[in-house]
Amino acid sequence: MASAYVLLDAGSGGLASQRLISSCFQKHFGNPILDVLDDAALLNDLGPSLAVSTDSYTVTPLFFPGGSIGTLAIHGTVNDVSMLGAAPKYLTASFILEEGLPLSDLELVVSDMAKACREASVLIVTGDTKVVPKGGCDKIFINTTGIGTLLVDNPPSGHKAQDGDVILVSGAMGDHGLTVMASREDLSFMSDVRSDSAPLNGLVSKLLTGCASVHVLRDPTRGGLATTLNEIALQSNVGIEIEEKLVPVHESVLSGCSFMGLDPLYLANEGKCICILPEHLAKTALDIMRSDLVGQEAAIIGRVTLNHPGKVILTTPIGGTRILGMLEGAQLPRIC
Amino acid sequence: MASAYVLLDAGSGGLASQRLISSCFQKHFGNPILDVLDDAALLNDLGPSLAVSTDSYTVTPLFFPGGSIGTLAIHGTVNDVSMLGAAPKYLTASFILEEGLPLSDLELVVSDMAKACREASVLIVTGDTKVVPKGGCDKIFINTTGIGTLLVDNPPSGHKAQDGDVILVSGAMGDHGLTVMASREDLSFMSDVRSDSAPLNGLVSKLLTGCASVHVLRDPTRGGLATTLNEIALQSNVGIEIEEKLVPVHESVLSGCSFMGLDPLYLANEGKCICILPEHLAKTALDIMRSDLVGQEAAIIGRVTLNHPGKVILTTPIGGTRILGMLEGAQLPRIC
Repeated sequence: MASAYVLLDAGSGGLASQRLISSCFQKHFGNPILDVLDDAALLNDLGPSLAVSTDSYTVTPLFFPGGSIGTLAIHGTVNDVSMLGAAPKYLTASFILEEGLPLSDLELVVSDMAKACREASVLIVTGDTKVVPKGGCDKIFINTTGIGTLLVDNPPSGHKAQDGDVILVSGAMGDHGLTVMASREDLSFMSDVRSDSAPLNGLVSKLLTGCASVHVLRDPTRGGLATTLNEIALQSNVGIEIEEKLVPVHESVLSGCSFMGLDPLYLANEGKCICILPEHLAKTALDIMRSDLVGQEAAIIGRVTLNHPGKVILTTPIGGTRILGMLEGAQLPRIC
Repeated sequence: MASAYVLLDAGSGGLASQRLISSCFQKHFGNPILDVLDDAALLNDLGPSLAVSTDSYTVTPLFFPGGSIGTLAIHGTVNDVSMLGAAPKYLTASFILEEGLPLSDLELVVSDMAKACREASVLIVTGDTKVVPKGGCDKIFINTTGIGTLLVDNPPSGHKAQDGDVILVSGAMGDHGLTVMASREDLSFMSDVRSDSAPLNGLVSKLLTGCASVHVLRDPTRGGLATTLNEIALQSNVGIEIEEKLVPVHESVLSGCSFMGLDPLYLANEGKCICILPEHLAKTALDIMRSDLVGQEAAIIGRVTLNHPGKVILTTPIGGTRILGMLEGAQLPRIC
């Protein structure tokens, strides 16, 4: 029976999130633009086509190896706009601050954001600040909303995966999710894991210029690779088959996951994308990704099929297969 | 000496807010678009000129006479986009939910938002949901970011008030701020005050069509009429003179303020605007406002002068004058 209360699971990016979206938000807000449910919305009637995406960031701790809530707030939204095949240009930034927050912490976060904006060539053009009484929020929450212009006439979408397409990832999976989890639990022996927080707009721009047809671009954040592939399988009504041994995962992440009982395929990434495109373009896409600083560990990991539509099948290293389900609830809450 | 911590005052919309904005956000994010510091940002290079505004809503209680956090989240952003002389079209909506929130409360808020969107003719096109552990936030926080297209070539701005201009408000001051304060303190004897939460895009569109030159449009939310007029006086480097007896304030709000020791000129409004324009257009503007459902109590309250630039002078009913300063800190925290 469905709960009458909001559970932590509903923020996980998995099935529980989807249920809340469809039973509450889509039910009331539904319209053709929103109902596409990609990482960003496509606005066609404002002159050049625009992509718009919004995200609130609530990660704890505020600072972790490889990044902070500030870098995430820029990279996450820059990447969501990019996934629609757009070049992000402008961001808004809205802060909810807890009374008593050290200003030095705020300034570290804000300077991380400014640096990330410069690196991604985007501008923050307007903002807002609220302060809530001590205990009213957890230190700092940040919302960023990004606006970009479409780079191609036929933008990629989770609905466009086709039979025979090849699936690539731009690098190793799970670094961000494990890093935040380890920071939170103070597992300092995991000193060699760090968040992959990075902007993907440069890589995406090269991909779209170099490959005539990119069907799907998605960044596997909350819920990880497995959940995002499930979303694509459902949206496109296709089957997806990937090989476990082809999915890049850093040795340190594998051992950390083994220690903590986590699956790297369900861990969040904040600087990686999934790219799905016709087979004849796969090698070109792989070369373009690997030539970019944030895509050096890119790999082809599987393909799209008409078998078992809506499902993701994993071939294990010993040749067996299993269904890779969608994340049900929260493996790691609040990691982005 | 400045505090090393974020104080509640910094969210008041007054001087403390401005200090945080200039010493932290502008210092790091500063650019020509952001630095205008109007209610919305003007984007000139994306085809038709766009206005973009963002706001996070943290009001407690969630529901109050005349509205809810849901109506505010739509009206507030619709109005901020309108104040730049634009017609809001699209909104993003991002939710931060506290674990354990009753889904029935969430659905009430969301249906309020949907109704407010229909009334203001705007669409929510993309969104995001995070859930934080119980105690990690106060029930529901909502961010909305609005995008609209400019209605005029020379849009109004807080920087454009000129000597001799006349100042109008579209209705009575202080209803929203007092209502939320009374709800919070459970002052049920104040049964005849209710929030003025309403969309202003219809009224603004008529104003801009009917008056050839509107210099300034601003909505006096946090910090109220007094603080917003001070911002305009500073941005335009002009003096502002208003007459207390001309400023519409409901009798119930006057008596409630008297009881609670509050000044209605510093209380937030969520469905009112300030309009500043040349004297020969004042009567036309007043008629247009009064013909609109949300502007029936509109009034001319004062004028712009070159005397005492940067200052707002109030003439009291007995003919004395006093400087109406900017709100220093929090009179009413978290009322929008």
